[in-house]
Amino acid sequence: MALLASRGGLPAPALMVDQWLNWPEPLQLDQLRGKVVLLHAFQMLCPGCIAHGLPQAEHVHRAFGRDGVVVIGLHTVFEHHAVTGPEALRAFNHEYRWSFPIGIDRAAPGSSIPMTMRAYDLQGTPSLVLIDRAGAIRLQHLGRIDDLVLGGAIGRLLAEDENASTAMVADRREVAEGPKCGPDACLRQS
Amino acid sequence: MALLASRGGLPAPALMVDQWLNWPEPLQLDQLRGKVVLLHAFQMLCPGCIAHGLPQAEHVHRAFGRDGVVVIGLHTVFEHHAVTGPEALRAFNHEYRWSFPIGIDRAAPGSSIPMTMRAYDLQGTPSLVLIDRAGAIRLQHLGRIDDLVLGGAIGRLLAEDENASTAMVADRREVAEGPKCGPDACLRQS
Amino acid sequence: MALLASRGGLPAPALMVDQWLNWPEPLQLDQLRGKVVLLHAFQMLCPGCIAHGLPQAEHVHRAFGRDGVVVIGLHTVFEHHAVTGPEALRAFNHEYRWSFPIGIDRAAPGSSIPMTMRAYDLQGTPSLVLIDRAGAIRLQHLGRIDDLVLGGAIGRLLAEDENASTAMVADRREVAEGPKCGPDACLRQS
Amino acid sequence: MALLASRGGLPAPALMVDQWLNWPEPLQLDQLRGKVVLLHAFQMLCPGCIAHGLPQAEHVHRAFGRDGVVVIGLHTVFEHHAVTGPEALRAFNHEYRWSFPIGIDRAAPGSSIPMTMRAYDLQGTPSLVLIDRAGAIRLQHLGRIDDLVLGGAIGRLLAEDENASTAMVADRREVAEGPKCGPDACLRQS
Repeated sequence: MALLASRGGLPAPALMVDQWLNWPEPLQLDQLRGKVVLLHAFQMLCPGCIAHGLPQAEHVHRAFGRDGVVVIGLHTVFEHHAVTGPEALRAFNHEYRWSFPIGIDRAAPGSSIPMTMRAYDLQGTPSLVLIDRAGAIRLQHLGRIDDLVLGGAIGRLLAEDENASTAMVADRREVAEGPKCGPDACLRQS
Repeated sequence: MALLASRGGLPAPALMVDQWLNWPEPLQLDQLRGKVVLLHAFQMLCPGCIAHGLPQAEHVHRAFGRDGVVVIGLHTVFEHHAVTGPEALRAFNHEYRWSFPIGIDRAAPGSSIPMTMRAYDLQGTPSLVLIDRAGAIRLQHLGRIDDLVLGGAIGRLLAEDENASTAMVADRREVAEGPKCGPDACLRQS
Repeated sequence: MALLASRGGLPAPALMVDQWLNWPEPLQLDQLRGKVVLLHAFQMLCPGCIAHGLPQAEHVHRAFGRDGVVVIGLHTVFEHHAVTGPEALRAFNHEYRWSFPIGIDRAAPGSSIPMTMRAYDLQGTPSLVLIDRAGAIRLQHLGRIDDLVLGGAIGRLLAEDENASTAMVADRREVAEGPKCGPDACLRQS
Repeated sequence: MALLASRGGLPAPALMVDQWLNWPEPLQLDQLRGKVVLLHAFQMLCPGCIAHGLPQAEHVHRAFGRDGVVVIGLHTVFEHHAVTGPEALRAFNHEYRWSFPIGIDRAAPGSSIPMTMRAYDLQGTPSLVLIDRAGAIRLQHLGRIDDLVLGGAIGRLLAEDENASTAMVADRREVAEGPKCGPDACLRQS
C-alpha cells in the first residue's frame, strides 16, 4: 500500500506533554515499542475533529485496542488558546466521554504552535500519525481519512514484526489551502 | 398534528439576552409577531447540540428563512460556566460559521440556570421551542427531533394567519433521565 | 412556501391500477377527498428509489399516517419490463416489507410508459406527487427531496381545510439530463 | 487479529460459475494465487446486500484494487429464483453500475441452494469471504461488517507473502436467527 512509508526510517519524536486525561501516568512512545500507535492531533473547537477525527480515534481504540494498537489523543492548540486551556479540555472530554488517553501538547514560548505539533511538523487538525512497532512514523495525514483505508494501513502495521528499524517521514498534506477551518480540518498558519 | 399545542395560549416569555452574535442589534420576540420563530437552546460543549441540534437549526434557517421563519440560537449555559463564556462562544461560533443570530442567555444571580432558560422551564439542551405568528409557544422539545416531523410542524405554523391569540405551553420532555449528557441531549439538574 | 402550487387548480388524474399490494381492495383518489395524499412513483430496480424515495415514503406513512396523510406507492415501470413484472415486485415488496399500499401502474398498449405515469406526465423515478384535501396536485418532484422541506409541504397541506377546489399542476424537474439512472433518479426517454 | 483464521488450512473451493458480468472471460481462484480475494455473495433482492454489502465490495475494489486485492461478486440465489435469473441480474447490474466482476452461482439440481454457496457452506446473504495469497479461506462473515475491521483484515492479508499453504475455514455466523431477510442479511433455510 503506497499510503504507508517504507520501514526503516527515523524514530517518531517524543511526546512533549505535561498533563494527561483518561490515563493515570505519563505515556512515552519509547515505552510502546512493539505496539502500533495511532496519534490523533486535535483541537476541541475544530469541527472536523469532533465530527470525524475523534470518533474515528475512539473507534480504532475499541476495534483494535486488544490487537496491539495504542490510540493517543494529542490536544495541539494553535488558535483560540485563551478558551481551550486544560480546564476547557477537561469539560469537553467529560461531555464526550472519550476513552483513550489524551495528552496536552506543551506550549512553545513565543509561538502559537505547541512543541509536539512542531516536532512532527503537523500542518493542522485533525492530523493522524501512525507509528509502527519499531517506533517509526509510517503515515501522517491531515484531514479526513476513510475507515477502510485506515483499517488497511493498521492491518499492515499489525502484521509487521518488531525487528524493523525506524522509517522515513511521509508527510501527506491533502487538505486544500483556504479558510482556517473547513468541514474536514483546521489549518495552522505556517 | 398532536405534536403542536393548540392556538390561543399565553405568549412566549421575552428573551433575556445582553449580547448577540451574528446579528447587529438586539432581537426581541415582540418585534417578530407575524413570523414563526424557532428558538434553539444549546450549549457549546453539548454533544447532541453539535451533532444534531445546531445543524438542524442552520438547516431550518436556510430552508425556511425566506418563508417567514426566524431561527434564533440561545446559549443557555447551565454547566461548565467557567469555560463557556462569551469569548469561548465567539471562538466556537467562528469555527462553525453558524449564520443565524445567537443570543447569550443572561446569568441568574445565585443560580447555575440562566434567566431565559428558567422562564421557559427548559430541562436541558438541545431544546427547541416553536413560537407561532401570534407569539405563543406551540412546541417545546428536549433532545433530537426528526426533520420530517419538525418540517411538518413548521409547515402547519406557516399556514396559520396572524390573528390567533397566544397558546398554552406544551412541554414535552422526551429524553430519559440518567447521565447529564447523552448522545442526544444534556439534562440540567432541577 | 413557493414549493407548493396554489390552491384551486385541476384535480389529480385517477390512478390506473389493476393490482394492489399491502392493501385488500382497490384504492381510488376520489375516495380520499379530505386526506392529503403522497403518491410515490418508483421502479423496483431504480437505485434512488431504494436508497431514498421508498424509505422516505415509508417514513411519511409512519410519521403522518394518523394525521390524515395517505401514502400510496405506484410501480411505474418504464424500463426492464421483462424482469420487473408483478411476481418480481411481490418478491421485492416481501423482502423490503413496505407497509403502505402499492399499486401497479397499468401498461399502455404500444408504449413503454404506463398509463398513470403518462397521465401525470412523470419524467422518471422516484417521483413524488402531493395531492391536497380537495384532490388537486400541489407538488410534483423528480429525484431526491429533503425531509425538512417535504415535512414543511405536508404540514402546510394538513393545515388546509377541505373546502378548496383543485389546483394548477406544478411540474418540477430538478434532475439533470444524462444517464438514465443516476444515484438519485432514473429518467424516462421522452 | 482474532478475526482471521490462521494460515495453512485447506484451499478455498473452486467457483462454480457459468456466466460472468463485467468481465470478459471466466475467473478461477487458482489463477489468482498471489492475490488477496474478497468474494462477496449476494442476492439482487436482499436489502442488506444493496444497502451495505455491495457498496462495500465496490469500495474495496476501488480502494485496494491496485494493491493486489481482487473483488468478486457471486450471485447466490436461494429464494425468489423465478424473478432473479440472469436477465434480471443484468438489469440490476446495469442500473447500479457495479464495476467488479460478478459470477452467477450454478444452480444445483434438486436444491434451492446453488453449488458454490453450498461448497462454502454460506448461511445467507450478504456473505463475505476473504481468501489469502495462498488460496486459503481466512474469513467468512454473514451480515454487516465494519469498514475499519474489514480494512484491518485486508491489510493483514496484504502483508503476508505468498509462501503460505492453505488455512482452516473460519465460519462466523453473527446474524441472529429469525425472519429470512432482516435489515442486514437474508438467511437461507438449512
